[in-house]
Amino acid sequence: MGDALVVRGTVYQAPTPHSLEVLEDVVVAVNALGVIRAVHAADSADGRDAISGALHLVELSSSQRLLPGLIDTHIHAPQWPQLGTGLDIPLDKWLFEYTFPLEARYADAGFADDVWNRMVPTLLRHGTTTAVYYGTVHNEATARLASACVRYGQRAFVGRVGMDHEQGTPEWYRDSSASAGLAASAQSIDEIRAIDAGAGLVQPIITPRFAPACSDELLNGLGDLAASSGVLVQTHCSESDWEHGYAFERFGVSDTVALQRFGLIRDHSVLAHGDHLGDSDLAILAAVGAGVAHCPLSNAYFANAVFPLRRALANGVRVGLGSDVAGGAHPGLLPQCGHAVTASRYLEDGVHAGLAADIRGVTESRVDAVTAFYVATAGGADLVGINSGVLKPGNVFDAIVVDTDSRMSGLHFYEDIDNHERLFEKIVRLAGPEDFTSVWVDGQRVA
Amino acid sequence: MGDALVVRGTVYQAPTPHSLEVLEDVVVAVNALGVIRAVHAADSADGRDAISGALHLVELSSSQRLLPGLIDTHIHAPQWPQLGTGLDIPLDKWLFEYTFPLEARYADAGFADDVWNRMVPTLLRHGTTTAVYYGTVHNEATARLASACVRYGQRAFVGRVGMDHEQGTPEWYRDSSASAGLAASAQSIDEIRAIDAGAGLVQPIITPRFAPACSDELLNGLGDLAASSGVLVQTHCSESDWEHGYAFERFGVSDTVALQRFGLIRDHSVLAHGDHLGDSDLAILAAVGAGVAHCPLSNAYFANAVFPLRRALANGVRVGLGSDVAGGAHPGLLPQCGHAVTASRYLEDGVHAGLAADIRGVTESRVDAVTAFYVATAGGADLVGINSGVLKPGNVFDAIVVDTDSRMSGLHFYEDIDNHERLFEKIVRLAGPEDFTSVWVDGQRVA
Repeated sequence: MGDALVVRGTVYQAPTPHSLEVLEDVVVAVNALGVIRAVHAADSADGRDAISGALHLVELSSSQRLLPGLIDTHIHAPQWPQLGTGLDIPLDKWLFEYTFPLEARYADAGFADDVWNRMVPTLLRHGTTTAVYYGTVHNEATARLASACVRYGQRAFVGRVGMDHEQGTPEWYRDSSASAGLAASAQSIDEIRAIDAGAGLVQPIITPRFAPACSDELLNGLGDLAASSGVLVQTHCSESDWEHGYAFERFGVSDTVALQRFGLIRDHSVLAHGDHLGDSDLAILAAVGAGVAHCPLSNAYFANAVFPLRRALANGVRVGLGSDVAGGAHPGLLPQCGHAVTASRYLEDGVHAGLAADIRGVTESRVDAVTAFYVATAGGADLVGINSGVLKPGNVFDAIVVDTDSRMSGLHFYEDIDNHERLFEKIVRLAGPEDFTSVWVDGQRVA
Repeated sequence: MGDALVVRGTVYQAPTPHSLEVLEDVVVAVNALGVIRAVHAADSADGRDAISGALHLVELSSSQRLLPGLIDTHIHAPQWPQLGTGLDIPLDKWLFEYTFPLEARYADAGFADDVWNRMVPTLLRHGTTTAVYYGTVHNEATARLASACVRYGQRAFVGRVGMDHEQGTPEWYRDSSASAGLAASAQSIDEIRAIDAGAGLVQPIITPRFAPACSDELLNGLGDLAASSGVLVQTHCSESDWEHGYAFERFGVSDTVALQRFGLIRDHSVLAHGDHLGDSDLAILAAVGAGVAHCPLSNAYFANAVFPLRRALANGVRVGLGSDVAGGAHPGLLPQCGHAVTASRYLEDGVHAGLAADIRGVTESRVDAVTAFYVATAGGADLVGINSGVLKPGNVFDAIVVDTDSRMSGLHFYEDIDNHERLFEKIVRLAGPEDFTSVWVDGQRVA
């Protein structure tokens, strides 16, 4: 019996932060469950067998490349309607006057469906094969997000947001009490598991919004729920000067240490932003196996500093990439790869010409397109513990075809100028959804 | 006799750095020369007359908006094939190992044509209705760039690059002497004027590459040529720590003062980057009417600091926006608008969390999407002295239609959430070439 799907072409991927792997003219053989059975050179005996036996064969053209799917490790689904707006507003005003009123509307499940039915297909079109979502406090809207992911075929972690703090949230958008929030979050886990029905495409994730929005009782209870259920955790951590300082004021320790005491820093916990994490915080994350969802564009607006990506990776911290929709103003992760490289250069060189060059920035901060693509793929997979992000046997076939001969985006391979490394960088920098000719999740074509 | 073209719809534009002008349901009436005769409310008597008499009528749908065309004030045309690559390389290596070898290939006019025939239509597709180009040292390739602009209908300033310095340029890519460079530059002006044949679409621009690439004799001669010909000037100025310091070492004064002594700082001179300009430099530019082509993305890679856009505008300096292809990794200016806003936030907040927040950045540096769009349109027009950038009577009809109902880019108007201001910001942040349904230059449809 042949493979359910065989794709023949040249693969670009980044299995580690510092390696671009080029697999020239290979066949990727995918079984009926969407798992990669084998990767062979196309002109080998095994490769020819895979091609001849394939139930469905896709052969890429010479201008097309096969990439692993992109993994967005931080995305606020309900903020989709304000994508691209309000970034000139301070965070507290942005939250209380724009974001919380918008999120409160998801009490209306019909409104939620309208947004999810726009958002999920658009993100798939942008190559986001896995998304780690914040929903809202509403169980129904959150469950419908999980349903939309199943319907359109996007791999996802979907979290009902827990938030009950009387100062940190508005009374018209919060859990009525810590116990009510805990009960709703526990119920949401069951609801999402029922929607996925064991298929493994969509999973729940425990989601205290961030410490300032949660009482100690809620944080503690969600930590206990994580331990008893084995469900992953996501929250925000040390994003801005304000949030970083807030933890010391309220808890007397760093945000990381406080979250750890509440049982929320666990293997594969996803901490958004982390721009102000100290070395001791990074050491905790590395020791536990938790990590950071790096959101470079959003950070320029709300974080007051650049996340030290290179330092975090060097310290053994898991890092994924996040769009932080709508704090980040684009869908899709390739633009965020560009922003990650750009942010690292701002951090290295500094920004203020009035300061002497040698104190303006932080030496050895720069990262390149390979590192950025690693965090957008294999790094994200490692962060949340899924067998995706690299096209290799045993991993799911979550993948994108990009056509590099584009008059729309400016992407083009010049025969006697470019090589694989340069074309890879061009793809990261230039490819847009109009250049993605196929997107697969679990071996199923989804865009 | 009716108008050659009448476009009916809602206009968004930024006539000043701090004003978004919304013209709801107007008609823009364009004469046979491509000049806007009138802008009327569509439901006025004049509006109805224009509609009924139009030789060609375009009515926008409710989801479409009409914008002025984008003016890219700094773009290195020959670097198009390396768009999106090499940004991790230091400037000197980038120039000598990548960029100069590539530019040297334009001795082959056929190669040049291949690139121009890809580049110009792609830029028009991205809404770049005017481009201020650096060509190469080759007169033929530069003339063919001007021809391509005429052929595809792009408004352009096209400059043959002058560069003769024995240390600052490689011997295999430079003018053989100052006098040879001067003669070639003077000849290029005549060649470009002959191509345009008085139509006014494409003009020459005098282009010493930058001080480190030019001898005093060449700089001085090109200054004299500007005075005698009345042709505009473009060059680079105080881009990086290195270039800023270089001028003081070689000339004993700032780059700006040196260029002024050579006669190159004139009304409408276009100085690329300017990140390290001091207050006295800005005062010179303001007094003379010269200005800056701000290239925010490129600056993150090669400038060691952020250009103080808000300070420059407050000081009365003309500022346009530039992609700096290929130092900037995208075609098109809307992404650069995003980068301009983002860069201003990095400058305001700083990047290095290890510095105290109050010394990390420069207060009152932030700009918003309106200011960024102003520099991309009206500001650029003011910089180079063309009657474009705003849709009003007497200006040329250089314009873009953007459809805001897009499943591709995530751009969408939510009836009860959005308003004109928010939709404008979404367009600036999200609209891609796939959302541009029409582009006109001089009233001619060019994409």
